Amino acid sequence: MTAESEIKAAPDTAASLPIALDAVGGDHGAVPNVEGAVMAAKAGVRVTLVGDQVKLHAELSKHSGISALPLTVVDAPDVIGMDEHASDVRGRKEASINVAAHLVKAGQAAALVSMGHSGATMAASLLILGRLPGIDRPAILTYIPARTGPVALLDAGANADVKASYLAQWAQLASLYLRVIEERENPTVGLLSIGEEAHKGSALTLEAHALLRQQAGINFYGNIEGSDIFKGTTDIVLTDGFTGNIVLKLAEGEARVLLGWVKDALTSSPRAKLGGLLVRDGLRAISERMNPSTYGASILLGVRGLSYIGHGSADAVAVKNALLRASRAHQSRFIERLSEGLAGSNSAQP
Amino acid sequence: MTAESEIKAAPDTAASLPIALDAVGGDHGAVPNVEGAVMAAKAGVRVTLVGDQVKLHAELSKHSGISALPLTVVDAPDVIGMDEHASDVRGRKEASINVAAHLVKAGQAAALVSMGHSGATMAASLLILGRLPGIDRPAILTYIPARTGPVALLDAGANADVKASYLAQWAQLASLYLRVIEERENPTVGLLSIGEEAHKGSALTLEAHALLRQQAGINFYGNIEGSDIFKGTTDIVLTDGFTGNIVLKLAEGEARVLLGWVKDALTSSPRAKLGGLLVRDGLRAISERMNPSTYGASILLGVRGLSYIGHGSADAVAVKNALLRASRAHQSRFIERLSEGLAGSNSAQP
Repeated sequence: MTAESEIKAAPDTAASLPIALDAVGGDHGAVPNVEGAVMAAKAGVRVTLVGDQVKLHAELSKHSGISALPLTVVDAPDVIGMDEHASDVRGRKEASINVAAHLVKAGQAAALVSMGHSGATMAASLLILGRLPGIDRPAILTYIPARTGPVALLDAGANADVKASYLAQWAQLASLYLRVIEERENPTVGLLSIGEEAHKGSALTLEAHALLRQQAGINFYGNIEGSDIFKGTTDIVLTDGFTGNIVLKLAEGEARVLLGWVKDALTSSPRAKLGGLLVRDGLRAISERMNPSTYGASILLGVRGLSYIGHGSADAVAVKNALLRASRAHQSRFIERLSEGLAGSNSAQP
Repeated sequence: MTAESEIKAAPDTAASLPIALDAVGGDHGAVPNVEGAVMAAKAGVRVTLVGDQVKLHAELSKHSGISALPLTVVDAPDVIGMDEHASDVRGRKEASINVAAHLVKAGQAAALVSMGHSGATMAASLLILGRLPGIDRPAILTYIPARTGPVALLDAGANADVKASYLAQWAQLASLYLRVIEERENPTVGLLSIGEEAHKGSALTLEAHALLRQQAGINFYGNIEGSDIFKGTTDIVLTDGFTGNIVLKLAEGEARVLLGWVKDALTSSPRAKLGGLLVRDGLRAISERMNPSTYGASILLGVRGLSYIGHGSADAVAVKNALLRASRAHQSRFIERLSEGLAGSNSAQP
C-alpha cells in the first residue's frame, strides 16, 4: 500500500466533475488554498473554488496562466471561523463549507475538500450529504507512515465517544476503502487495545473484539498495541475517535521533536556539521515521509459522497495533494463501489 | 525536571532498608535481575532478591566480589508466569511477587520492584499493601522524554476504564510525586483530550475537566492534545489507563522506527557512512534519551508503599535504575510525605 501512488494526475479531465474546494477555510485563508488549487489544476484536476469571490479572484490574479486552467469560482460570502462552533453550520447557508457540500449533493462537484473547521466540515457533510445505509456515524480515515508503508488509522477524531457497533461498521468501511483506493485485496484490521490477548482491553474494545470476530467481509487480525502502529502490524488500525486523534497528533508531534533533535545533533560541532552535509538527503526523505502535507487530507468515511478534511495549518502542497487524492477516488467510482460493497456484505451476513 | 538526576546512589546504605526485587520475574527470568541487582549493590543500594533460592544463588555465583555487597536472597519457590492471569496472585502465597510485597508490608523492605507480570504486580501491591486514604484506584506513573525534559504520564495502563473522580485523585498524587521526588514546586497538570477548549473532548474528559478546575492543591493547566506531550507543554499528562498505555507504547515504537530510519540513512551509501561516523555521538545521545531502560521502571501511585513496575523485556541497566529510583524515593520518605500531603489537601478542601 503506497499512499503516494494515489497522488498522480487524474487521467481524464474533460469528462470528470470538478472538486469543490472550501477555498477560504483554514488558518491561512485563501492563500494556500488558491495556490494548491492552481497546482492541482496544472496537474489536470478541475477545481471549483468556493468562497468570497472578490477575495478569490484577487488571489487568483497573483498567479500567471490562470485562464487556461480548469478553475472556476463559486461565490460564498460567509465562512465558519476556526474558533466558531461546528453547530453554526446549521444556520449559515452561505458559508463556504455549506455551499461546497451542496455542490456535491447536487452532482455539480465530485468531492468536497476543506482545510477549514473540521467539526463544521463533518457537520456539513453529514447534514447535506447524509449517511450511507447501515452506517450510524462517519469516521475520519487518515494515514500513519509505518515502517512497512502507510497504514490506515480510523477514527482519527470524528467521534470522541463511540459504541462497539460503530467500530465494526468502520472496519467494513476501511476494508472496502483499501480494496478500492489502494487495491489491497484482503487488508488486515487490528483493533487498538492494551494487550494482544482477546480478554485484555477496555469494556469498549472487549465488546468490539467479539463483534469483529464474527463480522463477514473483513480480515480481522485481533488486538494490536500502541507499539504495533509504526511496526505496520496491520493495514488498518481501528479505534475510537478520542484515542485515534491522540495517536495522530502524538505521532506527528513526536516526529517533529525527534527529527529536531537529529537536526540539532547534526549542527552541534564543525565535525557534526560536515557529517550532516553528507547525510542530508537521507534525512530529508525521512522528514518528507513524516510530513502531513504528503497525505494532503483525510477522508470522512460513511457519508454519501467524497469529503476530505485537512489540517487547518495546511500548506499549498497539502491542498494540491488533497485535490489529487479526491480526484483519484472519484475516478475510481469509490462511493458507488463502497455502496455496492456494503449492500453485498450486509445481504451476505447470517 | 530531570529523571536522570534521581538515578544516583542512595546516600546512607547502613541505615536504609533493602529494596525487594522480584528477581525471577520478566521475559528473561533471573539473569538481568541478578545482574541489575549486583550493579545497584555496587552503587550502594541494599537489595533483597526474591525467588527460587537455588536458581538465584547459582546466578549470583557467576558474578565476582558478591560476598562484600549488600545482597540477600529470600526464597520464593513459585513465580507468576508472563502468560498467566493477574488474579492468580490471590491463591499463590509462595509466588515471588507475593513474597516481595509481604516484605514491604512487614517493614522488612523499603520498596518492591518487579519486571514480571504487570497485572500480577499491581494486584499483589493492591491486595497486600492496600490503598492510600481517599484513593479509589492506583495508577502507573511513567516518564515520556519530551523536548523540555521528561514529563510524567499517568495512568500508563493500570485502569482501562476509569471515572472522572479517579483522574482528579491521580492529579493530586502526581503533583505530590513531582514535588517530593523531582523537587518541582508547582507542577502543571494537563488533561489529555482532543481539543484545547474546555468544551472539547469525550464525556469522561469533559467531566474530569470540571472536577480538575475546582480541585485544591493542583496547578491545572487545562486540556492538552496529543501534540503537546513531546512539546512538554505540561509537567504532568493526565489520562485514563487505556489511552495512557497506547501513548506510551506508541511513543516507544515510533522512536524505534524513526531512529531506525535515521540509522538506515546513515549507512545507505559510502558518502552517508562517512557522515554517519561524524554524527554518531549526537545520535547515540538521542537513542539513549528514548531508551526505556534509562527510566528503569514506573511507580504504582496510590498504594501504601513503594511499588515499581518495569518492562518484561527489561535489561540489567533497567533493573539497576529501577532499584536506584526506589531507593531514592525511600530516602525521600515519599510515602510518608504523600500521605501527609493527601491528608492536608483533603482537610483544606471546602
